[in-house]
Amino acid sequence: MRVKHKPWAKDRLEEFPAIYIKNPEDFKGQWREVFGNDNPVHIEIGSGKGQFISGMAKANPEINYIGIEMIESVLVSALDKAIEADVSNLRLVARDAKLLEECFEKGEIAQIYLNFSDPWPKKRHTKRRLTNPTFLTIYERLLPEAGEIHFKTDNRSLFEYSLVAFSEYNMLLTFVSLDLHNSDYEGNIKTEYEEKFSAKGFPIYRLEAKFDRN
Amino acid sequence: MRVKHKPWAKDRLEEFPAIYIKNPEDFKGQWREVFGNDNPVHIEIGSGKGQFISGMAKANPEINYIGIEMIESVLVSALDKAIEADVSNLRLVARDAKLLEECFEKGEIAQIYLNFSDPWPKKRHTKRRLTNPTFLTIYERLLPEAGEIHFKTDNRSLFEYSLVAFSEYNMLLTFVSLDLHNSDYEGNIKTEYEEKFSAKGFPIYRLEAKFDRN
Repeated sequence: MRVKHKPWAKDRLEEFPAIYIKNPEDFKGQWREVFGNDNPVHIEIGSGKGQFISGMAKANPEINYIGIEMIESVLVSALDKAIEADVSNLRLVARDAKLLEECFEKGEIAQIYLNFSDPWPKKRHTKRRLTNPTFLTIYERLLPEAGEIHFKTDNRSLFEYSLVAFSEYNMLLTFVSLDLHNSDYEGNIKTEYEEKFSAKGFPIYRLEAKFDRN
Repeated sequence: MRVKHKPWAKDRLEEFPAIYIKNPEDFKGQWREVFGNDNPVHIEIGSGKGQFISGMAKANPEINYIGIEMIESVLVSALDKAIEADVSNLRLVARDAKLLEECFEKGEIAQIYLNFSDPWPKKRHTKRRLTNPTFLTIYERLLPEAGEIHFKTDNRSLFEYSLVAFSEYNMLLTFVSLDLHNSDYEGNIKTEYEEKFSAKGFPIYRLEAKFDRN
């Protein structure tokens, strides 16, 4: 994604403490208090401009959502969408995925969404891919036993890489679609990128996987 | 595949005992004697008209191949291809995949190919798919610890089904391509069907998987 630097993003985000959680580390183990209920918490890592996470929050009021996007100049667009959505079950956080263990206790997150993550096509950047074993280790430490990762992408190489990476990590694939928009899958909420890309007729790949094999 | 019944197929096959093995059960545990060497044996289940298995035998003289196709009227076309290939490392067998344990000892086969297997799209026919757990159990009993299954198809639903089935069976995916003909994979030998189908521009899906996770 091309990012336009917005020096005012930080100030703007901080104007909305009911949505933007400036210091998520302070709430480790206490997210139920942030939301004021015991509903399950789903996070999206790399939530970009926030269309997906806002759409999910609106569609599923019984689930709490946290959009995580480390670039504040991007997250500020997600803030606008969150304000527009006018829901109480959505929060936004600006953190690197590597630091998530400082923000959440094991089991505090029920599900992780990865949508159109940066494919990092160069071999020397493999470790930056959000489905790399380094990150899978972090997700495993965050999720409860039955916790799932839901991943979608238009990038064929990233999807192939991820299938093998998940398998090598001994994760269980529970759902695979190689053409999401022409499949039976219902309730798909599109990201901004997905909307543009799929209009060109290219397939969207999607899978669900979990760590626990029982 | 539309099959034209050829009542003469059986007689024709039996005219070539150096290629067509009429009673494969007789050679259970003794296939090295059939081939006259200790080279690894790879089988293709559902070898159809035989272009793939003949091509493989020609390309890899250090490997022994057995094409397995239960319909004799189809296998007779594979016979013609085998005669034309003029190789010593290829045999043909007419058997149902369910009966393979009567023909091979555990470990006697090093690798299994499944190419463009019948997708059996109806839910009530799921058990007939060659990547159904019923068949995976048979393959597991046939293959040695490091033995692999190499599977390709143009059928999206069968590929999605198979990915989940392999994963649920705790197999390890070691290679995945979602567009074989536009990938880096080298040495692909096309089946008759693959040649026709891929000419229309649709993707070919391919994976390699093994039972042993160590």
